[in-house]
Amino acid sequence: MNLLLKDCRVIVTQNRNRDVLENFDVLIADGKIERIEKNIEADSKDFEVVDCKNKIVMPGLINSHTHAAMTLLRGYRDDLPLDEWLNEVWKVEAKLNEKFVRIGTLMACLEMIKTGTVCFVDMYYFSEGARDAVRESGMRAFLGPAIIDLFDEERKEKSVKEAKRFIEALIKENDERIKPVVSPHAIYTCSEDLLLESKEMSEAHNLKLTMHLSETRKEVCWCMKKYNMRPVDYLEKTGLLNERFVAFHSLWLTKEEIRKMGRYKVGAVHCPASNMKLATGGALAYREMRESGVLVSLGTDGACSNNSLDMFREMKFAALLQKWFRWNAGEMLAQQALDMATVNAARLFELNTGAVEIGRDADLIMLDATHYRLLPLKHAVSNIVYSATGDCVTDTMVKGEFLMRDGSLLTLDEERVKEEFGKAVEELIDEGTK
Amino acid sequence: MNLLLKDCRVIVTQNRNRDVLENFDVLIADGKIERIEKNIEADSKDFEVVDCKNKIVMPGLINSHTHAAMTLLRGYRDDLPLDEWLNEVWKVEAKLNEKFVRIGTLMACLEMIKTGTVCFVDMYYFSEGARDAVRESGMRAFLGPAIIDLFDEERKEKSVKEAKRFIEALIKENDERIKPVVSPHAIYTCSEDLLLESKEMSEAHNLKLTMHLSETRKEVCWCMKKYNMRPVDYLEKTGLLNERFVAFHSLWLTKEEIRKMGRYKVGAVHCPASNMKLATGGALAYREMRESGVLVSLGTDGACSNNSLDMFREMKFAALLQKWFRWNAGEMLAQQALDMATVNAARLFELNTGAVEIGRDADLIMLDATHYRLLPLKHAVSNIVYSATGDCVTDTMVKGEFLMRDGSLLTLDEERVKEEFGKAVEELIDEGTK
Repeated sequence: MNLLLKDCRVIVTQNRNRDVLENFDVLIADGKIERIEKNIEADSKDFEVVDCKNKIVMPGLINSHTHAAMTLLRGYRDDLPLDEWLNEVWKVEAKLNEKFVRIGTLMACLEMIKTGTVCFVDMYYFSEGARDAVRESGMRAFLGPAIIDLFDEERKEKSVKEAKRFIEALIKENDERIKPVVSPHAIYTCSEDLLLESKEMSEAHNLKLTMHLSETRKEVCWCMKKYNMRPVDYLEKTGLLNERFVAFHSLWLTKEEIRKMGRYKVGAVHCPASNMKLATGGALAYREMRESGVLVSLGTDGACSNNSLDMFREMKFAALLQKWFRWNAGEMLAQQALDMATVNAARLFELNTGAVEIGRDADLIMLDATHYRLLPLKHAVSNIVYSATGDCVTDTMVKGEFLMRDGSLLTLDEERVKEEFGKAVEELIDEGTK
Repeated sequence: MNLLLKDCRVIVTQNRNRDVLENFDVLIADGKIERIEKNIEADSKDFEVVDCKNKIVMPGLINSHTHAAMTLLRGYRDDLPLDEWLNEVWKVEAKLNEKFVRIGTLMACLEMIKTGTVCFVDMYYFSEGARDAVRESGMRAFLGPAIIDLFDEERKEKSVKEAKRFIEALIKENDERIKPVVSPHAIYTCSEDLLLESKEMSEAHNLKLTMHLSETRKEVCWCMKKYNMRPVDYLEKTGLLNERFVAFHSLWLTKEEIRKMGRYKVGAVHCPASNMKLATGGALAYREMRESGVLVSLGTDGACSNNSLDMFREMKFAALLQKWFRWNAGEMLAQQALDMATVNAARLFELNTGAVEIGRDADLIMLDATHYRLLPLKHAVSNIVYSATGDCVTDTMVKGEFLMRDGSLLTLDEERVKEEFGKAVEELIDEGTK
């Protein structure tokens, strides 16, 4: 489908100059942005004209860290610190299978499409289920089957083998929208051998290697005790640090560790709401990372520790947390929060999206420019980051194909997803409503 | 109108036991909750039956601190610290009049009704405009014309006189839904004489006295320098502290000041998003306040420093900020955040609302229990605080009268409000879209 987005009230381009355009048209051909001009004339035989005079057009958001299927566990065991919470969650996760993961991920895709996210980076189990769900939804995703051994040799072999099987199969499928990543869970759950085999896999297929890093002080203390060095130094020693490495959370780091991440061109993903809810104490040192050349993007983490996958809410948490904890209202600007969720993420995961720019894939969303949350519409970027929620989104498209149009889902049947999801939850969690 | 809310999927009662009920009915007669039982039979001649089997019924939220008309300035001069930001804002506010305040407040009421707020506490200028807007909307409000003199005797007399005139007129109107409060702005903008006259007014009419308190370190330093004592000690000396006093923000307080607030039965209002955005650095010491008997409720502050009036978002900010900055995931539970926005606020402002309980006024809201944000619906309070946004709200009522029903506004004409608001903004702010 070729589209002409006509008379866009505002386009937040996220191009190099961060231009915000008023009353421009966007021509999309073969899934790519071909022209951005005023008053484009196009043959209506070749192009469907979409009236955008009440729309804000902007790049679709990229959720750089989540565990999508954990929608199944939304609201489960809140208000516990990370380690206790993980133990509770692991008990339920032991009952998971591919079927549960598929429907959990499908519900996550539904929430993400509705709230303007076009692509996400997943780390979870039974990733075949996730793959099927993502394919049904039409979204983009990077799927990382969690690799974890708890320092048990047998478990390591099984986990690495399963990940390898999934990753190699997915590479063969050659799906432009669904790509694998190599996802060892964390240094405190993975042996050095596991990390080295993960690194090999990442190098062999030129894949990103994503991992939780320095999320809690406990993890850092554990690392100091076990390896007599800090986490980033340990990863350097094992040879894991390179431009393929993406570190989730990245909270309890020294300046020296951050400089080291910059030198190795490691990327970082900030998950402020999850960090706040799990009371990790630390916050990502955005200023130091920027100064050290660490590219930072944004993620919601799973629906069990957030408990929302709405990237609009996440941008606000990111900007406000940085301002507040550094006692500096200019610490992270609205523009910088939006960058994390768009262009930074696209660069980090080598996507040709994240901006409304000629030559980019048309992974775009539209917001209702007359939504009460967005009035007055004087400062579009401010409104997007501080005022909007995902509920302002009316249209979500990947490669010029609508996944949601004027509020209606086109790829997913909402009622069916909800029904199937409800049944799965009843099967998985044996608790009434509280 | 008498109503029978039939087969409520979940009722989050906020009663003394914080009961969460499934499949109960609620009978509302003459604006009051009369019965809460299973299978109530009522004569359909006398009661309109409302099907609630897909609804979460809960008390309407109370926004304990805002400057409603500042919707006009949403997105204006973001990312500045409080004092610089205030200077910028004051330049625009110098152009305000009753007409601007009316339409700004009307837009705020629209946003609040849509996001489940039934009552708010306002501090602003030209409060006649606010009063007219609130009356049109059908909401409840406490209106406080800001009293401020910047230590200028003439200005003091004018400001006190205007406030007195507004307050006495409003008392005479005897509107059950719209009540005055006495609102000196802050210790750093108000002379001692002004505070004393405010106190007199509050005592003469038995009204709450609301004031910004210890929002920044700068304010505390200023007070130490000018009066050689901390803000709460200064207020004690001037005789302002009593059970009528409600302190907005209340961030930079010592434990001794908090204990003093508790002894005088002073109330406090937490505004986490605004505090974070303006980088005040401090956070309300919720634990110490609770231990000292200070009743704490919740507010969004104005749409210019937040930039949202959605109390659902505010509850999440409150709980997550407390957890994160005290390094304790149990520091503020979802239940406690919900209490701040309902029962605590009702107690603080002596409202017979804030809970779904027999004898209370039926200031209720309903959420779509099938909304994707709220699935699975296993832990209703968690979902309300951590997952919901105001967009989950379908119905808002005050005293059993719908202000919004099934998503449609009944008291306000959305198109007309938006149109009038748009024109007012163009007149007030001479800037294009950025």
